[in-house]
Amino acid sequence: MDAASRPATKVNLAEKLAQITTHWDPHVVARYNGNDVMVVKFAGTFPFHDHPDTDDFFLVLAGEVLLDVEDQTHTLGPGEMFVVPAGVTHRPRAVTEAQVLLIEPKGTPNTGDPATAAAKPWL
Amino acid sequence: MDAASRPATKVNLAEKLAQITTHWDPHVVARYNGNDVMVVKFAGTFPFHDHPDTDDFFLVLAGEVLLDVEDQTHTLGPGEMFVVPAGVTHRPRAVTEAQVLLIEPKGTPNTGDPATAAAKPWL
Repeated sequence: MDAASRPATKVNLAEKLAQITTHWDPHVVARYNGNDVMVVKFAGTFPFHDHPDTDDFFLVLAGEVLLDVEDQTHTLGPGEMFVVPAGVTHRPRAVTEAQVLLIEPKGTPNTGDPATAAAKPWL
Repeated sequence: MDAASRPATKVNLAEKLAQITTHWDPHVVARYNGNDVMVVKFAGTFPFHDHPDTDDFFLVLAGEVLLDVEDQTHTLGPGEMFVVPAGVTHRPRAVTEAQVLLIEPKGTPNTGDPATAAAKPWL
């Protein structure tokens, strides 16, 4: 409930993504009830991990994401989303660069490992 | 944290929206940490209201939404989002039909008035 930490304004996701030059590096574009709403570019393969205490929300905006969830691979294109339940092992992959909207509680480490958690920058 | 109430599966938002024939009638397509992830079609003007206890997440998927937030109007096209902070008066409008992804805590009444709250159907 801290959306008011920034003035309420519209967010153009493509404009935000155009500012990102890195991969696997989510940037916060809004906050919703203590969740970070983030955009991120995927390319290559992320490590398998899980988030014991939170679901993980993915919505593909451009490109194609392969989401390995336990022993299944889900292929997501633009306009396709997936919520990985808390505690379920998963990894995203992208053969060519893909653009994704992510939602996770503020402070959730990308890899599920708090030791690697870094504050995610705002765009 | 009840995404597991349905099997984890990908959700194609356009396919879900194609099943909706009504306006201002959100349908749940996924659950994320106790939030309803919903798709909805807007056409016309919704009443001004606020949600005292929750932010309100809008992402336009198709068409154009005019979001009146207090005394300002924000024009949102596809790929544009807005988080209305808790307690802030707002109303969405759409001159022609628009398609929207909404996220609100499960059980949030559309109008902010618990008396009008109805369980939102799943698609």
